[in-house]
Amino acid sequence: MTALDDHSARPGVTTGPIMGSSKVHTEVRDPASGHVLRVPQRRVGLTDGTHIDLYDTSGPYTDPSATVDPHSGLPGLREEWIAQRERNGRRQPGTGGAPAAGPTQSACAKAGVITPEMRFVAAREGVDPEFVRDEVAVGRAVIPANRRHPESEPMIIGKNFLVKVNANIGNSAVTSSVAEEVEKLVWATRWGADTVMDLSTGKRIHETRERILRNSPVPIGTVPVYQALEKVDGDPAELSWEVYRDTVIEQAEQGVDYMTVHAGVLLRYVPLTARRVTGIVSRGGSIMAAWCLAHHRESFLYTHFEELCEILRAYDITFSLGDGLRPGAIADANDEAQFAELRTLGELTHVARSYDVQVMVEGPGHVPLHKIAENVRLEEELCGEAPFYTLGPLATDIAPGYDHITSAIGAAQIAWHGTAMLCYVTPKEHLGLPNRDDVKTGVITYKLAAHSADLAKGHPRAQEWDDALSHARFGFRWQDQFHLALDPETAQAYHDETLPAEPAKTA
Amino acid sequence: MTALDDHSARPGVTTGPIMGSSKVHTEVRDPASGHVLRVPQRRVGLTDGTHIDLYDTSGPYTDPSATVDPHSGLPGLREEWIAQRERNGRRQPGTGGAPAAGPTQSACAKAGVITPEMRFVAAREGVDPEFVRDEVAVGRAVIPANRRHPESEPMIIGKNFLVKVNANIGNSAVTSSVAEEVEKLVWATRWGADTVMDLSTGKRIHETRERILRNSPVPIGTVPVYQALEKVDGDPAELSWEVYRDTVIEQAEQGVDYMTVHAGVLLRYVPLTARRVTGIVSRGGSIMAAWCLAHHRESFLYTHFEELCEILRAYDITFSLGDGLRPGAIADANDEAQFAELRTLGELTHVARSYDVQVMVEGPGHVPLHKIAENVRLEEELCGEAPFYTLGPLATDIAPGYDHITSAIGAAQIAWHGTAMLCYVTPKEHLGLPNRDDVKTGVITYKLAAHSADLAKGHPRAQEWDDALSHARFGFRWQDQFHLALDPETAQAYHDETLPAEPAKTA
Repeated sequence: MTALDDHSARPGVTTGPIMGSSKVHTEVRDPASGHVLRVPQRRVGLTDGTHIDLYDTSGPYTDPSATVDPHSGLPGLREEWIAQRERNGRRQPGTGGAPAAGPTQSACAKAGVITPEMRFVAAREGVDPEFVRDEVAVGRAVIPANRRHPESEPMIIGKNFLVKVNANIGNSAVTSSVAEEVEKLVWATRWGADTVMDLSTGKRIHETRERILRNSPVPIGTVPVYQALEKVDGDPAELSWEVYRDTVIEQAEQGVDYMTVHAGVLLRYVPLTARRVTGIVSRGGSIMAAWCLAHHRESFLYTHFEELCEILRAYDITFSLGDGLRPGAIADANDEAQFAELRTLGELTHVARSYDVQVMVEGPGHVPLHKIAENVRLEEELCGEAPFYTLGPLATDIAPGYDHITSAIGAAQIAWHGTAMLCYVTPKEHLGLPNRDDVKTGVITYKLAAHSADLAKGHPRAQEWDDALSHARFGFRWQDQFHLALDPETAQAYHDETLPAEPAKTA
Repeated sequence: MTALDDHSARPGVTTGPIMGSSKVHTEVRDPASGHVLRVPQRRVGLTDGTHIDLYDTSGPYTDPSATVDPHSGLPGLREEWIAQRERNGRRQPGTGGAPAAGPTQSACAKAGVITPEMRFVAAREGVDPEFVRDEVAVGRAVIPANRRHPESEPMIIGKNFLVKVNANIGNSAVTSSVAEEVEKLVWATRWGADTVMDLSTGKRIHETRERILRNSPVPIGTVPVYQALEKVDGDPAELSWEVYRDTVIEQAEQGVDYMTVHAGVLLRYVPLTARRVTGIVSRGGSIMAAWCLAHHRESFLYTHFEELCEILRAYDITFSLGDGLRPGAIADANDEAQFAELRTLGELTHVARSYDVQVMVEGPGHVPLHKIAENVRLEEELCGEAPFYTLGPLATDIAPGYDHITSAIGAAQIAWHGTAMLCYVTPKEHLGLPNRDDVKTGVITYKLAAHSADLAKGHPRAQEWDDALSHARFGFRWQDQFHLALDPETAQAYHDETLPAEPAKTA
């Protein structure tokens, strides 16, 4: 019996404030709808009587005044906003049975409308709502928010906002239960994950996703082709547009906020990977390449892309155009296969935008330091500055077991150059499945990489955090230093292992 | 009773090959002296019948055919080379009782002489000996090799060679024994430390250093003012040139290869730190600032710098000009105090070079990503491209407990721009004293940062390592992947925690 099955047991998820922090809400009135938006922040109170408010991804789980019950899920924060938009909205043509849908965030932004979601993220980021609207209108930022996922607290991904971090979770055929995955979600967002991707592949995949969505305060991403492949018993050649489409609709109905679609893996690009050191390492890329080769036809994701746009528009799901041909080794970085696919992703970005569907573009992977900037430059040029969403990249291949670090080096660098969201890498990358500690290590490592980029980009709120911690350090206010740390528990535990000796002050 | 005191116990240091590796020696004949140089490498044999030879810092401890006895120390690899140079050499004037001394590596290089040390490092790095000589002659690289430390295997520090990593060890008043420090030395070099600094401050400081030097295959650095301060019972105002000079000679006689000297902390620079967030965080910098303020006189390290040059020349000790005013917080990076001191370090670099003394220059510290390149540019301009030796820098202050990572992000970046050696930071930085695991984590983290820079700089031998590992990964040759990892034990342990599932192959 898992914690989720056992109503009498204590909740199967981690709750309670982060050490030294309390939850506060800023109330912001949305003039158009009259709604009062309660924007969460994590307040760190300091011993000198001051405090600092930090961006808070953790949802109601860290709020002692909230009732948390994983069985019933989180309250529908956005329910009324969505309903109001749908009442004002119009049925989109050709959505194949999709629900009555209001306009997407993109459509609203283009029409000059500031949605409650935009106003919410403006308050979270400390910027003007009109600036948010403008960034969404031109596609330089996205607000992934499926209208079937009202539980999520709106957030924005774009180069002119705080750099975001995604954590991957998901059960596999061999390990973990639904309850464990919900706890991984809560655990990852507790430490700062801005979005979570559910990469589950085992049994109970639909149920796992349902429980994750109903309990998630952050946008949830998926890779629909993983589930589609299970429906055809794991044989890529048996995939079809119909199986894929039905899977997308199934997941869309549940509330998935963004979907990785490897629509840029074209038949003619596959041979470009033949002489690579590590061929195709993206799972979605491998699946689609296998399908293209088996049928010697163009990818159904590419040929049916406009139908996909109509479906995603109906739910206001954001595309995350997958880099199925990303390099899996330093030797393969910035090669012809990678950049050929990127050109196609640029083409598809413009198609999706014409449907008012929001778009992110995924990036590598494994890239040496001197080739990182070129990735951002080219993505921005080809994809009209659509938010770039990269996995690391790892700056070297020689340190399995430490790839959260090899990739944080590349991640900080690429984020400084303009990448909007970083997909975390845990110490188990390339070796095995991350456990609870690995998830935390991955998230904290990526938060510090993202924050390093925020500092370098001059985000107005970034440096005040560093300054507060450094003041506490110089004043030997140890408790303040712990409470201001990204991971207060670890900082305090390390300190308590030895006496506060002289070297602790230096550096 | 410690392991070092107990002759019957097994050696108190870690010996034996690194998992999957064996020690090989390349024999190189030095035509001038007739000596045959045995240059060590770590050979990783692969299951496909090939092998790859890696740079090896671990000395005889990983060589099963070597006899290791920490009581008698390592054999004097360089003894004959040094003796021959001294027979050919001349007594240097004004060295205050220093030994009959041959010319320094710098003097030899300027005179067009390729020393056995230069030939040794050329073989280690895979470059031409004449190139090594030229880099040393112009001061763009240094070979720290006190003629009283014949046990060391020569290595070179310079922007046109592999990026090096230093590990700090040292007992304190409260913890650890001499034997523990020797084991920390062996442990750090096992995982890749290119030099080790002994920052001991407690009792038995002379004895600790002696045992470290006699057992060290890598250059040893110190900060002499730490011991000088102990001689005046910890009161900086009681320091004097005489106490300092005698301490330098004491350490020089033992064989210290490079010394951190905070001679750039001038009286007039101290007020520049008044409005900083974290003032002066360098311990040596604080000591010298306190002395200057107490006496309202210019630092004796600055006023006696030429005498210091004569002493260091007599032993061929390398200066590491300390950055006593380095920033201790993001807010203080690249400020007037830091760069004023750097200008003085540039002036002193040129003085030392005129004495044929080798010079490195130390750098920060805490610097956000967008201010890192300027540090290298200015150091090269002001200090005539003397090897830059930086502590990190940390790219953010908000992650105590993870400062090996915050600093590896900055370290990879600054090394790519031209920093020649990186001083490691462990997870305990700012919080406590590193234990054995922390030392290993710090070294491995810095090796991967250094290697990321080697790749980006296009070092000819760097990428073949990544390619070998990536080939093994793509071919599912798990054992080869482990053996090629910077830390084979951790890679294998992580893998064995879970089944080799599908996600292990992706990314």
